[in-house]
Amino acid sequence: MEPCRLASELAVGERASLSHTVSELEFALFAAATGDLNPIHFDRSYAEATFFKGTIAHGMLCAGLISSLIGGRLPGVGTIYVTQTLRFLRPVRAGDGLTVAVEVLEVDVPRNLVRLRTTCTNAAGGVVVDGEALVEPPKKRPSQELARAMESRTKRLEEALSRAVSAFASDLRRWEEGEEHPEGTPPGGNVSDAA
Amino acid sequence: MEPCRLASELAVGERASLSHTVSELEFALFAAATGDLNPIHFDRSYAEATFFKGTIAHGMLCAGLISSLIGGRLPGVGTIYVTQTLRFLRPVRAGDGLTVAVEVLEVDVPRNLVRLRTTCTNAAGGVVVDGEALVEPPKKRPSQELARAMESRTKRLEEALSRAVSAFASDLRRWEEGEEHPEGTPPGGNVSDAA
Repeated sequence: MEPCRLASELAVGERASLSHTVSELEFALFAAATGDLNPIHFDRSYAEATFFKGTIAHGMLCAGLISSLIGGRLPGVGTIYVTQTLRFLRPVRAGDGLTVAVEVLEVDVPRNLVRLRTTCTNAAGGVVVDGEALVEPPKKRPSQELARAMESRTKRLEEALSRAVSAFASDLRRWEEGEEHPEGTPPGGNVSDAA
Repeated sequence: MEPCRLASELAVGERASLSHTVSELEFALFAAATGDLNPIHFDRSYAEATFFKGTIAHGMLCAGLISSLIGGRLPGVGTIYVTQTLRFLRPVRAGDGLTVAVEVLEVDVPRNLVRLRTTCTNAAGGVVVDGEALVEPPKKRPSQELARAMESRTKRLEEALSRAVSAFASDLRRWEEGEEHPEGTPPGGNVSDAA
């Protein structure tokens, strides 16, 4: 786990960022989490005929990356989300390498509030999502003992999630192979089982 | 697939809503999609000692439900997200039954822009997330033929996702059983394999 920062330790202009390449597997996991199966994210023949000329990521997937950076790094664990604004400026496609960044715009120590600029930028330097977050940083740091225990539990969760994602991906891959060669499957039949 | 609505067909005050009970499985899927493994969502002993007195959902999971309703129902398929504001007002816990609602606040037909109020409310009537979205509704409706083909592909994706989620959940459950009875597992050992 990354360390957390208290309001009194944050300075205007301080930044944190993460790099992440989004994948179709993440679109599927996000859809499974939220129920958002919009064809713009999955249906290639539909999406290619739209303004976007192909499938795109859920906008809120980028918002989830921003939230992850705020809660994991700056200010970090213990941060409470108050507000977030989001402007969706460009589409994000599977394979796009994103840089997600937060920058401290304002620190109000007495009210324990921090305002952050939040951006996602693609590899070509185009801002895909920007906005601002208002958050309450943690009021105290966890003890070293608690921090170690949390880190160890998070590591175990990470390993377990990684195995569960493999199971999810392998199940879904059988279905995708069926979708790419639908002539071999009965109309309306169970595509995954046919693969 | 639900029908989509063009700007000229929308009236101020028109609403759409969906009901959804959030689950720990969705927290895990959301974490797998976004990399957000913050202990407030997963680590019970940590979370119980915080202001929230227990684990809570990712705020952006609710934002994902709002986005799903906008893109799937009002205005529906073909909608382009321009902006979203989010105020996180109350925590959401696993098992909470949420009502996600959008209401048309303003329609600008010449500029093809629609402003929506967006809210998530819990079973006790408390607003957990509110905000506003600015969206571009679709400029035309898909042909009946395309709509039928999309519906059929979305249904197959839904079935495939449902099977993939079962595989994910079953893998994760073995790990959770290990976490609940850690005395039977070697320190630092592979908890999932021990279950």
